[in-house]
Amino acid sequence: MEIIQHIEARRSIRAYTGQPVTEEQVRLLLEAAMSAPSAHDTRPWAFVVVCDPEQRRRLAETHRWSAMAAKASVVFAVVGNPAMSEHWVEDCSAATENILLAATGLGLGGVWVGIYPVEAREETVRRTLKIPQGWRPLCLVPVGYPAEEKPPRTRYEEEKVHHEIWHKK
Amino acid sequence: MEIIQHIEARRSIRAYTGQPVTEEQVRLLLEAAMSAPSAHDTRPWAFVVVCDPEQRRRLAETHRWSAMAAKASVVFAVVGNPAMSEHWVEDCSAATENILLAATGLGLGGVWVGIYPVEAREETVRRTLKIPQGWRPLCLVPVGYPAEEKPPRTRYEEEKVHHEIWHKK
Repeated sequence: MEIIQHIEARRSIRAYTGQPVTEEQVRLLLEAAMSAPSAHDTRPWAFVVVCDPEQRRRLAETHRWSAMAAKASVVFAVVGNPAMSEHWVEDCSAATENILLAATGLGLGGVWVGIYPVEAREETVRRTLKIPQGWRPLCLVPVGYPAEEKPPRTRYEEEKVHHEIWHKK
Repeated sequence: MEIIQHIEARRSIRAYTGQPVTEEQVRLLLEAAMSAPSAHDTRPWAFVVVCDPEQRRRLAETHRWSAMAAKASVVFAVVGNPAMSEHWVEDCSAATENILLAATGLGLGGVWVGIYPVEAREETVRRTLKIPQGWRPLCLVPVGYPAEEKPPRTRYEEEKVHHEIWHKK
Protein backbone atom coordinates (compact mmCIF):
# COMPACT_ATOMS: atom_id res chain seq x y z
CA MET A 1 0.00 0.00 0.00
CA GLU A 2 2.86 2.41 0.73
CA ILE A 3 3.54 2.90 -2.93
CA ILE A 4 0.03 4.26 -3.41
CA GLN A 5 0.53 6.65 -0.50
CA HIS A 6 3.77 7.80 -2.14
CA ILE A 7 2.02 8.30 -5.45
CA GLU A 8 -0.72 10.35 -3.81
CA ALA A 9 1.86 12.33 -1.80
CA ARG A 10 3.56 13.51 -5.00
CA ARG A 11 2.34 17.05 -5.55
CA SER A 12 3.64 19.85 -7.75
CA ILE A 13 6.06 21.75 -5.50
CA ARG A 14 7.06 25.15 -6.84
CA ALA A 15 8.67 26.77 -3.75
CA TYR A 16 11.96 25.61 -2.28
CA THR A 17 13.96 26.43 0.87
CA GLY A 18 17.30 26.75 -0.92
CA GLN A 19 18.85 23.86 1.07
CA PRO A 20 21.17 22.08 -1.35
CA VAL A 21 20.31 18.70 -2.82
CA THR A 22 23.24 16.30 -2.48
CA GLU A 23 25.07 14.49 -5.25
CA GLU A 24 23.83 11.21 -3.81
CA GLN A 25 20.23 12.41 -4.02
CA VAL A 26 20.75 13.48 -7.62
CA ARG A 27 22.20 10.07 -8.39
CA LEU A 28 19.17 8.31 -6.81
CA LEU A 29 16.77 10.44 -8.84
CA LEU A 30 18.63 9.53 -12.02
CA GLU A 31 18.57 5.85 -11.07
CA ALA A 32 14.83 6.12 -10.59
CA ALA A 33 14.48 7.85 -13.96
CA MET A 34 16.44 5.16 -15.75
CA SER A 35 14.37 2.41 -14.12
CA ALA A 36 11.37 3.48 -16.20
CA PRO A 37 10.00 1.07 -18.78
CA SER A 38 11.19 1.67 -22.31
CA ALA A 39 9.62 0.24 -25.47
CA HIS A 40 11.90 -2.50 -26.82
CA ASP A 41 14.45 -1.36 -24.21
CA THR A 42 15.70 1.43 -26.50
CA ARG A 43 16.00 3.97 -23.61
CA PRO A 44 15.81 6.98 -25.93
CA TRP A 45 16.55 9.36 -23.07
CA ALA A 46 19.28 11.60 -21.68
CA PHE A 47 19.37 13.95 -18.71
CA VAL A 48 21.04 17.30 -18.18
CA VAL A 49 21.52 18.07 -14.49
CA VAL A 50 21.64 21.82 -13.96
CA CYS A 51 22.87 23.25 -10.65
CA ASP A 52 24.62 26.42 -11.84
CA PRO A 53 22.54 29.47 -10.81
CA GLU A 54 23.13 31.31 -14.07
CA GLN A 55 22.03 28.29 -16.12
CA ARG A 56 18.95 27.87 -13.94
CA ARG A 57 18.12 31.55 -14.34
CA ARG A 58 18.22 31.14 -18.12
CA LEU A 59 15.96 28.09 -17.92
CA ALA A 60 13.59 30.05 -15.68
CA GLU A 61 13.03 32.46 -18.55
CA THR A 62 11.87 29.72 -20.94
CA HIS A 63 8.21 30.55 -20.36
CA ARG A 64 5.93 31.93 -17.72
CA TRP A 65 5.54 28.61 -15.92
CA SER A 66 9.26 27.89 -15.59
CA ALA A 67 10.23 30.68 -13.15
CA MET A 68 10.76 28.23 -10.26
CA ALA A 69 13.81 26.83 -12.05
CA ALA A 70 15.75 29.83 -10.72
CA LYS A 71 14.93 28.95 -7.09
CA ALA A 72 15.26 25.16 -7.22
CA SER A 73 18.45 23.48 -6.01
CA VAL A 74 18.73 21.43 -9.17
CA VAL A 75 16.89 21.27 -12.48
CA PHE A 76 16.70 18.08 -14.52
CA ALA A 77 16.17 18.49 -18.24
CA VAL A 78 14.68 15.29 -19.64
CA VAL A 79 15.70 14.93 -23.28
CA GLY A 80 14.56 12.35 -25.82
CA ASN A 81 15.58 11.13 -29.24
CA PRO A 82 12.74 10.55 -31.74
CA ALA A 83 15.10 8.73 -34.13
CA MET A 84 15.75 6.09 -31.48
CA SER A 85 12.09 5.31 -30.76
CA GLU A 86 8.61 6.28 -31.87
CA HIS A 87 7.77 5.91 -28.16
CA TRP A 88 10.32 8.44 -26.91
CA VAL A 89 7.70 10.76 -25.37
CA GLU A 90 6.12 7.90 -23.40
CA ASP A 91 9.48 6.56 -22.19
CA CYS A 92 10.78 9.98 -21.19
CA SER A 93 7.46 10.78 -19.47
CA ALA A 94 7.63 7.59 -17.40
CA ALA A 95 11.21 8.54 -16.46
CA THR A 96 10.01 12.02 -15.46
CA GLU A 97 7.24 10.62 -13.25
CA ASN A 98 9.85 8.40 -11.58
CA ILE A 99 12.04 11.44 -10.82
CA LEU A 100 9.07 13.21 -9.24
CA LEU A 101 8.04 10.17 -7.18
CA ALA A 102 11.59 9.48 -6.05
CA ALA A 103 11.99 13.14 -5.06
CA THR A 104 8.87 12.87 -2.90
CA GLY A 105 10.29 9.75 -1.27
CA LEU A 106 13.53 11.58 -0.43
CA GLY A 107 11.67 14.46 1.22
CA LEU A 108 12.20 16.70 -1.79
CA GLY A 109 9.67 18.35 -4.06
CA GLY A 110 9.56 19.00 -7.76
CA VAL A 111 7.33 20.00 -10.63
CA TRP A 112 6.95 18.98 -14.27
CA VAL A 113 7.52 21.96 -16.56
CA GLY A 114 6.40 21.09 -20.09
CA ILE A 115 8.71 22.13 -22.94
CA TYR A 116 7.88 19.82 -25.88
CA PRO A 117 6.00 20.22 -28.22
CA VAL A 118 6.25 24.04 -28.18
CA GLU A 119 9.10 24.85 -30.55
CA ALA A 120 10.05 28.23 -29.07
CA ARG A 121 10.43 26.64 -25.64
CA GLU A 122 12.41 23.73 -27.02
CA GLU A 123 14.72 26.18 -28.78
CA THR A 124 15.42 28.16 -25.59
CA VAL A 125 16.27 25.01 -23.65
CA ARG A 126 18.29 23.60 -26.53
CA ARG A 127 20.36 26.78 -26.79
CA THR A 128 20.90 27.11 -23.04
CA LEU A 129 21.93 23.49 -22.55
CA LYS A 130 23.64 23.04 -25.94
CA ILE A 131 21.45 20.06 -26.77
CA PRO A 132 22.45 18.65 -30.18
CA GLN A 133 20.09 18.38 -33.14
CA GLY A 134 18.20 15.10 -33.09
CA TRP A 135 17.48 15.32 -29.37
CA ARG A 136 14.41 17.14 -28.05
CA PRO A 137 13.87 18.53 -24.54
CA LEU A 138 10.61 17.03 -23.24
CA CYS A 139 10.45 18.88 -19.95
CA LEU A 140 12.31 20.51 -17.06
CA VAL A 141 12.02 19.19 -13.52
CA PRO A 142 13.08 21.75 -10.88
CA VAL A 143 13.73 19.96 -7.56
CA GLY A 144 14.52 21.21 -4.06
CA TYR A 145 13.52 21.00 -0.42
CA PRO A 146 9.87 22.05 -0.26
CA ALA A 147 8.95 25.47 1.10
CA GLU A 148 5.26 24.69 0.65
CA GLU A 149 3.12 21.86 1.98
CA LYS A 150 0.40 20.12 0.03
CA PRO A 151 -1.66 17.21 1.34
CA PRO A 152 -1.67 13.85 -0.47
CA ARG A 153 -4.59 13.39 -2.82
CA THR A 154 -5.94 11.45 -5.73
CA ARG A 155 -8.04 13.06 -8.41
CA TYR A 156 -9.97 9.85 -9.03
CA GLU A 157 -13.02 10.55 -11.19
CA GLU A 158 -15.56 7.79 -11.65
CA GLU A 159 -16.71 9.26 -14.97
CA LYS A 160 -13.25 8.66 -16.45
CA VAL A 161 -13.61 4.89 -15.92
CA HIS A 162 -15.31 2.54 -18.38
CA HIS A 163 -15.86 -1.19 -18.04
CA GLU A 164 -15.32 -3.66 -20.89
CA ILE A 165 -16.24 -1.05 -23.51
CA TRP A 166 -16.55 2.75 -23.60
CA HIS A 167 -19.98 3.79 -22.36
CA LYS A 168 -21.39 7.22 -23.00
CA LYS A 169 -21.72 9.01 -19.64
CA MET B 1 14.30 5.18 0.11
CA GLU B 2 11.48 2.64 -0.19
CA ILE B 3 10.03 4.46 -3.15
CA ILE B 4 13.26 3.93 -5.09
CA GLN B 5 13.19 0.24 -4.23
CA HIS B 6 9.60 0.11 -5.51
CA ILE B 7 10.60 1.88 -8.71
CA GLU B 8 13.47 -0.56 -9.28
CA ALA B 9 11.24 -3.53 -8.43
CA ARG B 10 8.83 -2.64 -11.25
CA ARG B 11 9.66 -4.97 -14.08
CA SER B 12 7.72 -5.91 -17.20
CA ILE B 13 5.69 -8.97 -16.16
CA ARG B 14 4.20 -10.89 -19.05
CA ALA B 15 3.15 -14.17 -17.36
CA TYR B 16 0.31 -14.41 -14.85
CA THR B 17 -1.03 -17.12 -12.54
CA GLY B 18 -4.67 -16.52 -13.40
CA GLN B 19 -5.58 -15.59 -9.80
CA PRO B 20 -8.22 -12.87 -10.05
CA VAL B 21 -7.45 -9.25 -9.29
CA THR B 22 -10.06 -7.78 -6.96
CA GLU B 23 -12.30 -4.79 -7.58
CA GLU B 24 -10.56 -3.00 -4.73
CA GLN B 25 -7.17 -3.56 -6.36
CA VAL B 26 -8.50 -2.24 -9.67
CA ARG B 27 -9.82 0.81 -7.86
CA LEU B 28 -6.42 1.44 -6.20
CA LEU B 29 -4.64 1.18 -9.55
CA LEU B 30 -7.05 3.72 -11.02
CA GLU B 31 -6.54 6.05 -8.06
CA ALA B 32 -2.79 5.81 -8.63
CA ALA B 33 -3.28 6.54 -12.33
CA MET B 34 -5.37 9.61 -11.63
CA SER B 35 -2.81 10.92 -9.14
CA ALA B 36 -0.39 11.58 -12.00
CA PRO B 37 0.59 15.15 -12.78
CA SER B 38 -1.34 16.76 -15.59
CA ALA B 39 -0.37 19.94 -17.44
CA HIS B 40 -2.66 22.77 -16.33
CA ASP B 41 -4.70 20.09 -14.52
CA THR B 42 -6.59 19.21 -17.71
CA ARG B 43 -6.49 15.43 -17.00
CA PRO B 44 -6.99 14.48 -20.65
CA TRP B 45 -7.30 10.79 -19.79
CA ALA B 46 -9.83 7.98 -19.54
CA PHE B 47 -9.48 4.30 -18.68
CA VAL B 48 -11.23 1.23 -20.00
CA VAL B 49 -11.00 -1.67 -17.56
CA VAL B 50 -11.27 -4.95 -19.43
CA CYS B 51 -11.90 -8.20 -17.52
CA ASP B 52 -14.09 -10.08 -20.02
CA PRO B 53 -12.04 -12.95 -21.53
CA GLU B 54 -13.43 -12.46 -25.01
CA GLN B 55 -12.57 -8.76 -24.96
CA ARG B 56 -9.09 -9.55 -23.67
CA ARG B 57 -8.62 -12.14 -26.40
CA ARG B 58 -9.47 -9.50 -29.02
CA LEU B 59 -6.99 -7.04 -27.47
CA ALA B 60 -4.36 -9.78 -27.45
CA GLU B 61 -4.57 -9.88 -31.23
CA THR B 62 -3.72 -6.18 -31.63
CA HIS B 63 -0.10 -6.91 -32.44
CA ARG B 64 2.60 -9.44 -31.75
CA TRP B 65 3.58 -7.92 -28.41
CA SER B 66 0.05 -7.84 -26.97
CA ALA B 67 -0.58 -11.59 -26.61
CA MET B 68 -0.34 -11.49 -22.80
CA ALA B 69 -3.60 -9.49 -22.67
CA ALA B 70 -5.41 -12.82 -23.09
CA LYS B 71 -3.82 -14.30 -19.95
CA ALA B 72 -3.89 -11.25 -17.64
CA SER B 73 -6.63 -10.91 -15.05
CA VAL B 74 -7.42 -7.37 -16.15
CA VAL B 75 -6.29 -5.10 -18.94
CA PHE B 76 -6.30 -1.32 -18.58
CA ALA B 77 -6.59 0.67 -21.78
CA VAL B 78 -5.19 4.16 -21.19
CA VAL B 79 -6.89 6.60 -23.52
CA GLY B 80 -6.14 10.27 -24.13
CA ASN B 81 -7.75 13.25 -25.76
CA PRO B 82 -5.45 15.45 -27.90
CA ALA B 83 -8.11 18.17 -28.11
CA MET B 84 -8.00 18.58 -24.34
CA SER B 85 -4.23 19.03 -24.08
CA GLU B 86 -1.13 19.19 -26.23
CA HIS B 87 0.48 17.27 -23.36
CA TRP B 88 -1.93 14.32 -23.44
CA VAL B 89 0.78 11.74 -24.22
CA GLU B 90 2.93 12.89 -21.30
CA ASP B 91 0.00 12.97 -18.86
CA CYS B 92 -1.29 9.55 -19.92
CA SER B 93 2.23 8.13 -19.78
CA ALA B 94 2.73 9.35 -16.21
CA ALA B 95 -0.64 7.76 -15.34
CA THR B 96 0.48 4.50 -16.96
CA GLU B 97 3.73 4.45 -15.00
CA ASN B 98 1.70 4.98 -11.82
CA ILE B 99 -0.50 1.96 -12.65
CA LEU B 100 2.60 -0.18 -13.15
CA LEU B 101 4.25 1.02 -9.92
CA ALA B 102 1.06 0.61 -7.91
CA ALA B 103 0.61 -2.90 -9.32
CA THR B 104 4.13 -3.79 -8.14
CA GLY B 105 3.31 -2.43 -4.70
CA LEU B 106 0.19 -4.62 -4.51
CA GLY B 107 2.14 -7.76 -5.41
CA LEU B 108 0.82 -7.71 -8.96
CA GLY B 109 2.71 -7.43 -12.23
CA GLY B 110 2.00 -5.68 -15.48
CA VAL B 111 3.50 -4.53 -18.72
CA TRP B 112 3.20 -1.46 -20.95
CA VAL B 113 1.97 -2.45 -24.41
CA GLY B 114 2.37 0.50 -26.79
CA ILE B 115 -0.54 1.25 -29.13
CA TYR B 116 -0.16 4.93 -30.14
CA PRO B 117 1.17 6.18 -32.54
CA VAL B 118 0.66 3.14 -34.80
CA GLU B 119 -2.69 3.75 -36.52
CA ALA B 120 -3.54 0.12 -37.26
CA ARG B 121 -3.09 -0.78 -33.59
CA GLU B 122 -5.09 2.21 -32.47
CA GLU B 123 -7.90 1.21 -34.81
CA THR B 124 -8.04 -2.36 -33.46
CA VAL B 125 -8.26 -1.14 -29.87
CA ARG B 126 -10.73 1.59 -30.80
CA ARG B 127 -13.03 -0.88 -32.50
CA THR B 128 -12.79 -3.49 -29.74
CA LEU B 129 -13.45 -1.02 -26.93
CA LYS B 130 -15.79 1.28 -28.89
CA ILE B 131 -13.61 4.29 -28.14
CA PRO B 132 -15.17 7.42 -29.66
CA GLN B 133 -13.47 9.61 -32.24
CA GLY B 134 -11.39 12.31 -30.60
CA TRP B 135 -9.93 9.90 -28.05
CA ARG B 136 -6.77 7.89 -28.79
CA PRO B 137 -5.63 4.69 -27.08
CA LEU B 138 -2.07 5.31 -25.85
CA CYS B 139 -1.38 1.82 -24.51
CA LEU B 140 -2.70 -1.35 -22.92
CA VAL B 141 -1.60 -2.47 -19.47
CA PRO B 142 -2.26 -6.18 -18.81
CA VAL B 143 -2.10 -6.86 -15.05
CA GLY B 144 -2.24 -10.04 -12.97
CA TYR B 145 -0.49 -12.03 -10.28
CA PRO B 146 3.03 -12.69 -11.56
CA ALA B 147 3.98 -16.14 -12.81
CA GLU B 148 7.55 -15.00 -13.44
CA GLU B 149 10.10 -13.43 -11.12
CA LYS B 150 12.48 -10.69 -12.10
CA PRO B 151 14.97 -9.05 -9.74
CA PRO B 152 14.84 -5.30 -9.07
CA ARG B 153 17.24 -3.26 -11.17
CA THR B 154 18.08 0.14 -12.49
CA ARG B 155 19.47 0.67 -15.95
CA TYR B 156 21.47 3.70 -14.85
CA GLU B 157 23.95 4.69 -17.53
CA GLU B 158 26.52 7.34 -16.73
CA GLU B 159 26.86 8.30 -20.40
CA LYS B 160 23.21 9.43 -20.44
CA VAL B 161 23.94 12.09 -17.81
CA HIS B 162 25.25 15.56 -18.59
CA HIS B 163 26.13 18.34 -16.15
CA GLU B 164 25.19 22.01 -16.70
CA ILE B 165 25.35 21.60 -20.49
CA TRP B 166 25.38 18.71 -22.96
CA HIS B 167 28.91 17.39 -23.35
CA LYS B 168 29.91 15.18 -26.23
CA LYS B 169 30.81 11.76 -24.84
